[in-house]
Amino acid sequence: MVHAPPPPPPGLPPVRVNLYSDTQTKPTPAMKAAMVAAELGDEQAGTDPTVTALCERMAALLGKEAAVFLPSGTMCNQVAILTHCRPGDEILAHETAHILTSEGGGAAALTGAQITGLSGPQGQFSLEALQAAIRPKSRYAPPQTLVEVEQTANLGGGAVWPLATLNAIAAFAHECGMATHMDGARLTNATVAAGIAPAEMVAGFDSVWLDFTKGLGAPLGAVLCGSSEFIGRAWRWKQRLGGSMRQGGICAAACLYALDHHVDRLAEDHANARVLARGLAQIEGITVEVPQTNLVFFDTTGTGLTAEALAARVRREGVAFSAMGKYRGRACTHLDVTLGQIEDAVSVIRHAVTTQR
Amino acid sequence: MVHAPPPPPPGLPPVRVNLYSDTQTKPTPAMKAAMVAAELGDEQAGTDPTVTALCERMAALLGKEAAVFLPSGTMCNQVAILTHCRPGDEILAHETAHILTSEGGGAAALTGAQITGLSGPQGQFSLEALQAAIRPKSRYAPPQTLVEVEQTANLGGGAVWPLATLNAIAAFAHECGMATHMDGARLTNATVAAGIAPAEMVAGFDSVWLDFTKGLGAPLGAVLCGSSEFIGRAWRWKQRLGGSMRQGGICAAACLYALDHHVDRLAEDHANARVLARGLAQIEGITVEVPQTNLVFFDTTGTGLTAEALAARVRREGVAFSAMGKYRGRACTHLDVTLGQIEDAVSVIRHAVTTQR
Amino acid sequence: MVHAPPPPPPGLPPVRVNLYSDTQTKPTPAMKAAMVAAELGDEQAGTDPTVTALCERMAALLGKEAAVFLPSGTMCNQVAILTHCRPGDEILAHETAHILTSEGGGAAALTGAQITGLSGPQGQFSLEALQAAIRPKSRYAPPQTLVEVEQTANLGGGAVWPLATLNAIAAFAHECGMATHMDGARLTNATVAAGIAPAEMVAGFDSVWLDFTKGLGAPLGAVLCGSSEFIGRAWRWKQRLGGSMRQGGICAAACLYALDHHVDRLAEDHANARVLARGLAQIEGITVEVPQTNLVFFDTTGTGLTAEALAARVRREGVAFSAMGKYRGRACTHLDVTLGQIEDAVSVIRHAVTTQR
Amino acid sequence: MVHAPPPPPPGLPPVRVNLYSDTQTKPTPAMKAAMVAAELGDEQAGTDPTVTALCERMAALLGKEAAVFLPSGTMCNQVAILTHCRPGDEILAHETAHILTSEGGGAAALTGAQITGLSGPQGQFSLEALQAAIRPKSRYAPPQTLVEVEQTANLGGGAVWPLATLNAIAAFAHECGMATHMDGARLTNATVAAGIAPAEMVAGFDSVWLDFTKGLGAPLGAVLCGSSEFIGRAWRWKQRLGGSMRQGGICAAACLYALDHHVDRLAEDHANARVLARGLAQIEGITVEVPQTNLVFFDTTGTGLTAEALAARVRREGVAFSAMGKYRGRACTHLDVTLGQIEDAVSVIRHAVTTQR
Repeated sequence: MVHAPPPPPPGLPPVRVNLYSDTQTKPTPAMKAAMVAAELGDEQAGTDPTVTALCERMAALLGKEAAVFLPSGTMCNQVAILTHCRPGDEILAHETAHILTSEGGGAAALTGAQITGLSGPQGQFSLEALQAAIRPKSRYAPPQTLVEVEQTANLGGGAVWPLATLNAIAAFAHECGMATHMDGARLTNATVAAGIAPAEMVAGFDSVWLDFTKGLGAPLGAVLCGSSEFIGRAWRWKQRLGGSMRQGGICAAACLYALDHHVDRLAEDHANARVLARGLAQIEGITVEVPQTNLVFFDTTGTGLTAEALAARVRREGVAFSAMGKYRGRACTHLDVTLGQIEDAVSVIRHAVTTQR
Repeated sequence: MVHAPPPPPPGLPPVRVNLYSDTQTKPTPAMKAAMVAAELGDEQAGTDPTVTALCERMAALLGKEAAVFLPSGTMCNQVAILTHCRPGDEILAHETAHILTSEGGGAAALTGAQITGLSGPQGQFSLEALQAAIRPKSRYAPPQTLVEVEQTANLGGGAVWPLATLNAIAAFAHECGMATHMDGARLTNATVAAGIAPAEMVAGFDSVWLDFTKGLGAPLGAVLCGSSEFIGRAWRWKQRLGGSMRQGGICAAACLYALDHHVDRLAEDHANARVLARGLAQIEGITVEVPQTNLVFFDTTGTGLTAEALAARVRREGVAFSAMGKYRGRACTHLDVTLGQIEDAVSVIRHAVTTQR
Repeated sequence: MVHAPPPPPPGLPPVRVNLYSDTQTKPTPAMKAAMVAAELGDEQAGTDPTVTALCERMAALLGKEAAVFLPSGTMCNQVAILTHCRPGDEILAHETAHILTSEGGGAAALTGAQITGLSGPQGQFSLEALQAAIRPKSRYAPPQTLVEVEQTANLGGGAVWPLATLNAIAAFAHECGMATHMDGARLTNATVAAGIAPAEMVAGFDSVWLDFTKGLGAPLGAVLCGSSEFIGRAWRWKQRLGGSMRQGGICAAACLYALDHHVDRLAEDHANARVLARGLAQIEGITVEVPQTNLVFFDTTGTGLTAEALAARVRREGVAFSAMGKYRGRACTHLDVTLGQIEDAVSVIRHAVTTQR
Repeated sequence: MVHAPPPPPPGLPPVRVNLYSDTQTKPTPAMKAAMVAAELGDEQAGTDPTVTALCERMAALLGKEAAVFLPSGTMCNQVAILTHCRPGDEILAHETAHILTSEGGGAAALTGAQITGLSGPQGQFSLEALQAAIRPKSRYAPPQTLVEVEQTANLGGGAVWPLATLNAIAAFAHECGMATHMDGARLTNATVAAGIAPAEMVAGFDSVWLDFTKGLGAPLGAVLCGSSEFIGRAWRWKQRLGGSMRQGGICAAACLYALDHHVDRLAEDHANARVLARGLAQIEGITVEVPQTNLVFFDTTGTGLTAEALAARVRREGVAFSAMGKYRGRACTHLDVTLGQIEDAVSVIRHAVTTQR
């Protein structure tokens, strides 16, 4: 065996409807053409014009002073935490936040920061929940220095944090002397769904990033934005983590292309998600969380099948979705999923459930 | 200002001979075509066939069980150190090693490991120097757990560690219970120059990586190799640092292309470096370190100009090299530098020096 | 100002009934005599006979192979976590645990470990709560490697974890490949209250420590116990943190004295706590948590006074207790508090409340 | 086996002349009486009057604003580094400094800081050596933020850093924006030997500590001094490391006693060291480094015995010294060594050497 991740089980047909994750979108021919045409330089030396153009554009889009290009959203989170926090600090985030559940304990391992999880429906916590988590300042309690939100909240069903909540949380955090960070893995899904301009939606957050590998369809890359001072310090951590990418412009070009061509069309993914949700809801034994964006979470308890068992069963018919809990499945719409495929997937899932009962 | 690194000073002509760094090589049209044609998947899920192919090929080439694709050589070093060491461990490396001088203190910041620098000519330390640095084992001394070498040694003038030294150092390290790691930023320059097969050259090293962004000309990416167990644990750190790249195959395709087309031709860069060295040596006031590979280090003391001053002067004529010390310049040959350009550069440098005197 | 902690406000009378904390017990004359008489050596070199005797005795008492003497209970926790865990690991503990609330984020800062807080009444979590917190093993989730309990649970009202719960939790943790650690700040209060031998109570725990500065009355020191291999590695962290104490035997002698003379008498403190609880419960507006050991928590909501306001008011009459929440007070019985003083304190508190209404 | 450090080999007579280390001095009866008589409180709450008195006195003695009491000198170093530095920072110190050789890699493990060792005779580096170690500021180099000296330099033979060197180093460090820290394990040996007031000797250093367990004869404890702001932040790290000591005044009393009674008499130890050095120098085969304070280093090469072999041989006659290198021995004078014992020791060593030849 020459690399770590297990290959997919043999004997399976190719996936024909990929609802597994929007991270699996593939670059389109037009996007690839933009990559090939990009003017390149040395990103680490600050002289790659395409990376520079992407950073300038993202800073303007999100209303921040500066931006830095990084290989992944996880690195955006880790670099932001390293830049905001010192060892021993406490971060407040939702208990299902990606930084707490899915980054391998990176905040503790790299920054030495403790994440305390707040609860609340749809991957969101209320202002009151945040207020209740504030510790009296003393030399015994960990210093609370950062509040984090994930927009949209993946494990919260792709729900969109309301602007009023975001602003209230940010105002309170700043009042307490805490910084604010937004994990914008699917930020454009939120802005498109809510009809709110990105800069307005993230105005309360000292740092925020957008991932280009999900619904936006780029092969890799994310951009972290903040003040010039913040991004200046973030660069040191980018360098330490090995996030510099020499002729990174070839990838930044895909991101620029995505900003031009793949943002507005997210509305289509959201419409498709609603169709998918309605289809699944009509299958006996499945209950569906109403989707706000492109993630459709559903419960399989009533089918007698775990989410994993159902997923395995439909995978054999070429339909992929992911199991996020024992009886919680997630199906994800994106660039590479058409309305027709959704109807196809619903009928495969229905058949799998029916056969079972 | 929207991003941190300073842009090049305005009013300068474009660089027409780029001896600044082999990291600035740009992907060729044929390499880009390979990227466009690559079959893609989800690298983080282990299902990107091009990344898988690159890892398999690198593991075979370097004679190791497994490999992992990472965005940069710095991340290869950091992930290797994180995987080999625990907090409080001591790493022995040359005092000019990239991990000690140029990764922002990353080994201490991320792993909690102390690097103690050994001295010796050409960026290399002897077996005896290593032996002299061994501390008696006690609960007071930091546990010494890793020996690192950099092949070729950048700040050592691109010198090639002799195979006998590598093997003696590795054998001694293993005898002491220490692991061995090779920073192979320019490993293929070494194997081509020495005429030794890569797997033979790195046989004594538990982990080793090759950078594709230097003389090999890929836009980004490096591959870290080691045992299956080691690479399995390295994957966790890749995930924590945010080194996963979704459709990373688009970049891995460039690396595969480089393995096919850009390795043997490094001999040409080495020949060009010798021509460059001879040319510079004939300029009064400049003394040159005889190049073993593609890096030409020279001393400007006799010219009355610091390396930086001379670099600034020739840059105005469109020739770029880098200042690595007050009077130490480095000129680097690579894919994008022709023999004719070298002659051009030498005469520009000669003119700049002569004018000065 | 020459040192950091604020001095007590001026103009206050001396404390005549100190229910503030059992950490404030002072060494008795007989204990001091034992200190003066102790045979001393070099603790860091393993040749202080009194420290050696204390470690041997504690290892035997708690049924572990080995023990190490440390300046404080906090250092016992930190050294244990450093020895059990690696950076990025996740620790499961009660959300009110001392390691999470009162050690300055030390587990994250020093070990790089994330503590996830479980909920449950009386500072205890159930086996089911632990089971529900287990994450599927993947390269994304933080590795869960340690389960921690605090016996007795300070912020849980000094409640005693039942032996059956401890054993069930430990068995499950071991089954999952996790280690178990007990914070035994007030372990002897628990063993005396439950009538269970210490070794039996801690049998499921890979590491456990006892603090000598609380009800046991020593001026400083705590002893961490575990396997020989564990304690051997713990010594390295003791050295790194600076926990070695040269002629530490002079303090270990106080601990040995406490083991001989101050353990059984904890029953008296518990009886006093029950008297205190009954007294407080008869004050209108105060509701009391029934004490299991020497900590009496009570709620002041009905008095119209916050816990802090009430504490300040009775402090002016020479009675001290501590405010642990807005309306949650804690009064603590110990070596230096007599039955008569408790009656005195109750009447001072009653008067303060009555005057207020 | 119940604790980690190996007991001394059996069958040996008691040590009758202990030149092993001044850390092994034992508290005198008068010092113990001072401990017994001390007024005590809660050090962690800032209300132990004896600890407060010690901190005030040390701050005044060393001319700093504030001070904090800690269990050991190692913790003073670690807390100072944690307070001065951030992860990824580089510390410049002598290559034989205690923080680099004898604290288990603590600076890297706890702070994430890299120590780069400078060379120079007698455990001291020159201003020029420091200047040569300064890296150009860039995002690649580790930020250099702290310069450390050890006064006296233990592995430098107990040599006293000249005031002019200290001041020049400190001035240059501050000019570069670096902080300065002095490890004052044997600071009073230096001030007494040099006849310079402590506050004058440490004036250039932002933080400095004095150990009370060496020639000063207290059983445990050290005091770290600096600005009020620095000590305020240091307290957080004291808390995280577990360095708080409840009724710590009982130990602080020994330190206060030592300041009154054991400082001036260090001159006697220094005179004894000179007698010892002269005695050893007359033994054929032994060469001696001229002692400046209480440490006498000597070379055993000419005797045909390693330092360890010679130490083992005289230990059998009840004389103890330590082997600090293959042929480098160290004999240490202190409170518990009389002039008569020194003559005794010299003749035992002479006999051991003579017998050997």
